[in-house]
Order: sequence, then structure tokens, then C-alpha cells
Amino acid sequence: MPDPVAIGIDLGGTQVRVALVQGGRVLARASEPTDVAGGPEAVLRQFARLTEKVTARADPLDIIGVGVASPGPLDSGTGTIIDIPTLPGWSGFPLRDMLTKQMRLPVVLENDGIAAAFGEWRHGAGQGLRHLVYVTVSTGIGGGVIIDDRVLRGRRGMAGHVGHMPVVLDGPVCSCGGQGCFEALASGRALGRAARAGVASCPDSRLSAEPPDILSAQHVVAAARQGDALALRLLDDEARYLGLGFTGLIHLFSPEAVIMGGGVSQAFDLLSPGIHSGIQERAMAAFRNVRVLKAGLGENSGLIGAAALALDIEGATA
Amino acid sequence: MPDPVAIGIDLGGTQVRVALVQGGRVLARASEPTDVAGGPEAVLRQFARLTEKVTARADPLDIIGVGVASPGPLDSGTGTIIDIPTLPGWSGFPLRDMLTKQMRLPVVLENDGIAAAFGEWRHGAGQGLRHLVYVTVSTGIGGGVIIDDRVLRGRRGMAGHVGHMPVVLDGPVCSCGGQGCFEALASGRALGRAARAGVASCPDSRLSAEPPDILSAQHVVAAARQGDALALRLLDDEARYLGLGFTGLIHLFSPEAVIMGGGVSQAFDLLSPGIHSGIQERAMAAFRNVRVLKAGLGENSGLIGAAALALDIEGATA
Repeated sequence: MPDPVAIGIDLGGTQVRVALVQGGRVLARASEPTDVAGGPEAVLRQFARLTEKVTARADPLDIIGVGVASPGPLDSGTGTIIDIPTLPGWSGFPLRDMLTKQMRLPVVLENDGIAAAFGEWRHGAGQGLRHLVYVTVSTGIGGGVIIDDRVLRGRRGMAGHVGHMPVVLDGPVCSCGGQGCFEALASGRALGRAARAGVASCPDSRLSAEPPDILSAQHVVAAARQGDALALRLLDDEARYLGLGFTGLIHLFSPEAVIMGGGVSQAFDLLSPGIHSGIQERAMAAFRNVRVLKAGLGENSGLIGAAALALDIEGATA
Repeated sequence: MPDPVAIGIDLGGTQVRVALVQGGRVLARASEPTDVAGGPEAVLRQFARLTEKVTARADPLDIIGVGVASPGPLDSGTGTIIDIPTLPGWSGFPLRDMLTKQMRLPVVLENDGIAAAFGEWRHGAGQGLRHLVYVTVSTGIGGGVIIDDRVLRGRRGMAGHVGHMPVVLDGPVCSCGGQGCFEALASGRALGRAARAGVASCPDSRLSAEPPDILSAQHVVAAARQGDALALRLLDDEARYLGLGFTGLIHLFSPEAVIMGGGVSQAFDLLSPGIHSGIQERAMAAFRNVRVLKAGLGENSGLIGAAALALDIEGATA
């Protein structure tokens, strides 16, 4: 009998991605820009269309379930979206039940950070660990936590909103409405903002060549790789902020490792020394040897993790 | 058959307390100032002496175990002290094994924050909850976490160091060596420091009557109860800082409630409105209705919790 197969769905604010997944491998994948304006009904049709594509050559009998990774907050217990800041019209939508009807398969709905943490634990950089914190640093900062060999869920399955740990008293306003959150300080969006502020006083930087309104974290990383002084300084600050936030997470959860994913982790080689020296400097002695690792599944952590949750009902409901 | 009885020991930097505990009730209790200079050997003799006192009228056959709550970091898996900043000479001391030999009873060693969390969960303000974060706000800030009906332990059992979440970038130096930790901002020690700074510019405050070098959080609370304007302003700030830190913990762990213990919780009635409005203001919508409760067991949370862990081997080892 072949290993069971599941469908992984990654619902994002810009893209819907669907994959056929077996163990840690993506067998087929398809994506479309998210039909934000169309709301849940249109997106459910996108799910159907993309699923048809990726399962075209699969035996339907081998597919045992569907895992959906979605931005939160969502209630993974009831399978209902609570609120997605980037997707209006989804509040209170019973996504799991609607999709179960449409797909005629068991469906697991999970916060995208928790799904990615699960993917990294089962098939990525966290294999064999008992305790890990996964942090995705992209436009925002999200994450998920595995401690004591279990997925940390909490009330309504909402544990692990690591981007909304306060790290700067009266700091910059955050997407969540709060102030000074880890996300507001260290996300890709914050790095882009720092770059736009930085070019004003560094006209010689390569970054000054970009139109300021599109200047983003990616440009900073590219310029740093070419030795640009401003870009390197911006990444030094970014590493320091990440080291600060990761130290907090290490004290709170006591993981064996912090796993970093998301777009900004493409600069992991440049950020890692600064992150680790920040932890060395700030963590209590007993926590200082905790390592930060780059995610092993790249942009597929959530997709593979969602499918893995569907394949591992014990993990999903434990 | 009577309910089983356990010995609870609370090893503190200033006091050693020992109690005979049945369920959530303290049957007998005794204490001595901690023999800090004498190190572990002297303190083990204190444990023996105090245990003799509290068990003088008990049937030894009813006593099924010993639970020790100790400052950390400690490794609850191996029963070894890692390091206690307030107690020199304890690093690496195998407290659980030494005490097992001395007492001839099964011994559980637990971080005092986790023990108190367990006590509040089983017998205090957290009874019936599935998810709670316990925070003790006294000289420092410590805590423990129960999520998904289990004690959160993590690597070496060191999860829940909630006092060392960074909340102020480049903030005041913390007892842990870091900077800007929640403890450095919102502990009783920090409140005392703020009071000493405040009296300089408020000579009319009742607090100016105290010798500045002994001015502490307790004086602030007492003066606030008499309507002193400076003391009330200091407590407003304290409530704001607590609300900030608790909001972070709510986003990270998704508890049903935060339970506040420790000396500063004696002012819970004065602090609660400010704490709750801070959470209302800063938390993401889905988390805003999480309540902060005053600890139900007062200064006995750790003592009762340690004994409860000894009585509940499943809870202790789960």
C-alpha cells in the first residue's frame, strides 16, 4: 500500500496555493492570486479549481484528507475563521465545515503559523526535536509552538501569536492595532520602512536607486549581498531585533531550537551571527546555547504542515 | 481511608517554608529564615527540622511524598538546580536525589512559578480552567503556564520564565543580566525604584516621609490606599506595565485567564481596572475578553502546588 496522500491548502492574503502532499514531499502544486474581493465563496471555488489541477493524475482513493493553513486568528477547535485582517468578509466563516461538504473529505483547519511549525517538526529543520518555536518573518511575524512533543493550542487554538509580543514600550504602531509589537519592530514590512527612512540620509547607498515607495526588505537583502553599507547596517539592526524577540520566546517556551522561516529568512546567513550574539548577550545563562535554525521546507512549511496535520489526526487533535 | 497527605517545601531566597498539605488545605506550617551562607547542606538540615515540626502530629503512613518549589532555573527532569541568583553555592546541586535519601519519600522538584501555577490550577483561582498563565509579581516576576490541560515544561523543564520577556528596547537592566525585561519594568523592586525617583519631585507625598533607602512597593500600596497622589500615579503606571506584559502573554499562550499572585497582588483591587483597560487597548480583538484574576491561595500557591505535584504524579511527570 502506498503512503497516504493529503491535499494541503495555503490560504494567503495574496495567493491561494494547493498541493498534493505525501509525507514531506510535494507531488504537485498550483496557485492563483487570492480572489480577495470575491470573499469566501469565490475562494472556495479557487480551492476546487486548484485541487482539480493537482489531483488530475492522482488516485482519489489514496487521498485521505485536506489540511488548510489560514491566517488567523481562527478557532481550530470549531474550524471557524475569527478574523483575517488582510481578507475582509471572512469573519465567522465556518471554513472547515463548508470545505468538508465541498471536498467530501475530512478537513483540518489550522493557523498558518502552527501548520508551518508542524510541517517543520515532522518534515523540516525540527525533525527529532521535542520542543521548538517556529517563527515566520515575512510581511508580518507569525509562528507556532511545539513543546513537550505536542502542538501548543490554548483557548480557541490561538496560542503562538509570537508577532504580538510587546518589545518596545510606546513603540511603532502594529498591524494588530497595538504598539511596539515584535512584528512592528522586526517584520519585513518594518525593515522596508527602516530602509525608506535610511536612504534619506544615505544618498550614496544602492538603495537610493530604488523608487522609495517600492523599497522593501528584498531590496535591502540584495544590496547587503553586494556590500552596501546602509543595507548591512539595516540587517545588523534587524538581526539585533530578531535576537531580542527570540530571546523572549526562548525564556517563555524553553524550546531546543527556534526555527526561522518566511521571506526575510532568505537572508538567514547574513542575519544568523547577529541573532546568535544577541541571544548570547541577553538570554539567561541556562538558555544561551539554544540555536536558531533556518526553516528546512522554505515556502512550503505551511503547505506541507497543513497536509501533515490532515494525515496525522492525532497531531491535529491532540 | 483519609485523603493522602504530602509535604510541601518552598525554598525562597529569604525564607524556607514547610507545610503538611492535604488537597488544597495547609494542615500545619513552619518557617525559618533561609540559611543562605550555609549552602545546600545547611538548608537540607532546615528542611529536616521544619518537616519534623509540621509532621509531629501526623501519621507517617499517610504522607506519600514531598514537593519542593525552588527558584530557578532548575531542571525538573533531572531534579537538579541549575543556578539560583539569590542563593550562591547551589549550582548543579542534585536537590531531588539528596532530599529523597534524607526523607525516604518520593520527591518532586519544581520551579516555584510552575508549582504555584499548578497549585492555583488544582486548588485556587484556576480551578476548572484548561488554559492559564500564572504570574507572581513580587521582588521579581516569575510564573508558570498550564495550556491544553497540561503543565508546560519545555527543554529541561524551564518554560514559563515570564519575567524575562523583553518589553522595553534598551530598557532598565534586569536581575538576569538582560535589559528591559518585564521584570525590570513591572516587578515590586521596579515599583520601589520608581517610588524613590518620584519622591524627589513630590516632597508633599506621604512617601517622602519614609527613609528613601527602605521605600518599597508596600509603602506605595499603603500610601495609595490613603489617597496619596504620587502613590496612585505610580500604581497607574504599574497597572499599565502589567497590562502590557499580560497582553503579550495572552497573545503567546492564549490562556482563558491570567492569574496574578505575589506581594504586589495585594494591591490587585487598585491595579485591576488599569490592567484590564490596558488589555482592552492593546490586545487583538479575539483576545480582549481574557480576564486577569487574583491568585486564590495567596502566599501559599507554591507550597500547596508543590505538595499537589507530589500527590499527583501524573501531573508532575506529564
